[in-house]
Amino acid sequence: MSDAGFGFGFGGVLKSAVEAFGPLCVGIDPHDFLLQEWGLPSSAAGVREFGLRAVDAVSGRAGIVKPQVAFFERFGSAGYAALEEVLAASRAAGIITIADAKRGDIDTSLAGYAEAWLTPGSPLEADALTVNPFQGVASLEQAMTYAADNGKGLFVLAATSNREAAGLQRARIERIGSDQGSSSTVTVSRAIIDDVSAFNAGRIDAGVVGSIGVVLGATVDFPAQGVDVDAPHSPALPVLAPGFGHQGAQATRVRELFGALTPLTLVSESRSLLQAGPHGLAAAIDARSAELRAALG
Amino acid sequence: MSDAGFGFGFGGVLKSAVEAFGPLCVGIDPHDFLLQEWGLPSSAAGVREFGLRAVDAVSGRAGIVKPQVAFFERFGSAGYAALEEVLAASRAAGIITIADAKRGDIDTSLAGYAEAWLTPGSPLEADALTVNPFQGVASLEQAMTYAADNGKGLFVLAATSNREAAGLQRARIERIGSDQGSSSTVTVSRAIIDDVSAFNAGRIDAGVVGSIGVVLGATVDFPAQGVDVDAPHSPALPVLAPGFGHQGAQATRVRELFGALTPLTLVSESRSLLQAGPHGLAAAIDARSAELRAALG
Repeated sequence: MSDAGFGFGFGGVLKSAVEAFGPLCVGIDPHDFLLQEWGLPSSAAGVREFGLRAVDAVSGRAGIVKPQVAFFERFGSAGYAALEEVLAASRAAGIITIADAKRGDIDTSLAGYAEAWLTPGSPLEADALTVNPFQGVASLEQAMTYAADNGKGLFVLAATSNREAAGLQRARIERIGSDQGSSSTVTVSRAIIDDVSAFNAGRIDAGVVGSIGVVLGATVDFPAQGVDVDAPHSPALPVLAPGFGHQGAQATRVRELFGALTPLTLVSESRSLLQAGPHGLAAAIDARSAELRAALG
Repeated sequence: MSDAGFGFGFGGVLKSAVEAFGPLCVGIDPHDFLLQEWGLPSSAAGVREFGLRAVDAVSGRAGIVKPQVAFFERFGSAGYAALEEVLAASRAAGIITIADAKRGDIDTSLAGYAEAWLTPGSPLEADALTVNPFQGVASLEQAMTYAADNGKGLFVLAATSNREAAGLQRARIERIGSDQGSSSTVTVSRAIIDDVSAFNAGRIDAGVVGSIGVVLGATVDFPAQGVDVDAPHSPALPVLAPGFGHQGAQATRVRELFGALTPLTLVSESRSLLQAGPHGLAAAIDARSAELRAALG
């Protein structure tokens, strides 16, 4: 998927995939209860089989998968070996992979995580990685540059879909204004979006879509959280949007919820699709994709 | 290390280790430049050898190690297999292990991470795990309970040692007061410490030291960040303190910096010790431990 040399980058790859298949991103979350429903053991072999069958069902039907790394990490190195196979199978099928690992740390350690997931040819190679900005968006900068330089992407958590997050993510952060001496406050979520968008704008090789996106949950009350979905971004800002399906938001409301961000908003669903079982998953993906096509016109 | 059945828990284990060996926590951070200095390859075999030699040097000299997971994850499943060996060797040597993985996610996914690192007998079993509260301390609650129930610990990032973190971590968060209708604001760092301390206080099986601690960087300006190191905590609050050594704080200033928290504050150093090389590491640990004994009287 690396086309960095041609100024295409992850943003361009993502845009093509959404144009070809629509915005559905299929989460690969091998919860124990799902493994049981799929008739698979709670083991590294079980999550491997679950992941490979999911990739099979997605192939030709949706453009993006998002394995939840926690469910593989449960089984240690054997779980990671399973995840490597699932990522490789996705790549072989031409499906974009977003490793949902939510990694965060100081710069040198985060660079280690970026190396793990975003190095072409590495065992855990994915097209993009979710990252956590608790230690400051600036702590992510080395990784953002590494991603963009390698034709890869990052999605920075900004306004997550879980209720318990609102307290911290609506906290107000001091912003020094461009007028000397002026200062004001913005929410944590808003500050993160601004910083990510500024990074994309500062890349001289940026195409029409940035390499770095944000995670905005579909269940979030955006105005209350200081997020303006209609604010302009140049290049365009990719959005990974969990919160659909099991967590309560309806995929067909994506335009109403995400406004001007809609064209690059990935509608992420996991449990609500995976519960269809190994034999029903393909049909569930087709049905949701058709709903989205109708809703997005 | 699990003594949960006897109401001892991770806090008690930690207290015993600090009493026996002092508060030094040796980071195991196989950066590429350190691997080179140690004459080891940048590979899974290299980080394995680096980790095992470090554990060897720590054994009998310090009570706690903290492997930085990012540097192992670079090598995918093979890196994790190496980390499993390093963790097992530490356990066999009676050394407490803190997996510095900074995991964070919504509750069900975070439970997966807790299962990975804090389940007795699991391949990646450690005594404690660092976790990230960006999605709300409440998103960590299932993992906090899991840790405490298994005689394990967590360290929740609260005020990290890197400069870029201050903006977000000093953001002000709405707190509803106990008087009906009253409200005030506290910093994000302060709110996290309060929430963690409240969890420890609510465990009926808590000993004199809580199972859940916080990460407070030694380089942080605590008053500016709203953190009162002399505030009382019952049970006592374990603190993991990076920022010593390479990042600039002197280990001998621990009491001055951490006030009433000092007795359970783990002085974490990585590069500043590891740069002594494989043959000098044991002496470097002895020297730093002696300095700390003198400083702590």
